[in-house]
Amino acid sequence: MKIVVNISLKEGVLDPEGQAIKASLNNLGFRNCSDVRTGKQIVLNFNQNNETETLSQAKKMCEKLLVNTVIENYEINILKD
Amino acid sequence: MKIVVNISLKEGVLDPEGQAIKASLNNLGFRNCSDVRTGKQIVLNFNQNNETETLSQAKKMCEKLLVNTVIENYEINILKD
Repeated sequence: MKIVVNISLKEGVLDPEGQAIKASLNNLGFRNCSDVRTGKQIVLNFNQNNETETLSQAKKMCEKLLVNTVIENYEINILKD
Repeated sequence: MKIVVNISLKEGVLDPEGQAIKASLNNLGFRNCSDVRTGKQIVLNFNQNNETETLSQAKKMCEKLLVNTVIENYEINILKD
């Protein structure tokens, strides 16, 4: 069973990478992009198929290792193949 | 209108960050995670609402700047609020 964790910066947290991408897009002639935010995506492949159990484990992994909850938000989804 | 671009490494391309995460998860006692792959997520905020036009621009942005199509796959989605 595959789980996708999407991690994004909280609103108000500066995103220099996003700003750099926005500037580069502008230089390439794409001028109608008003804001760019970057984030991370982590795909976890579990050896088990119990949905509730897997989701609760993924949440623990996020809180303990994957996400810096001070500045980042996260979202956990099951990946349907 | 917001567009989400999910960028992931192609199959077969090594992912040292994912391997490091997997090892750390193992050390923390999460032993039922057989594989971890990492990717990027970019949220583009457009000043326009024409879906077809926006999607085609996002595709061009991916091909020209955001994605290294030799080693990465991408997926473009409209973000519904």
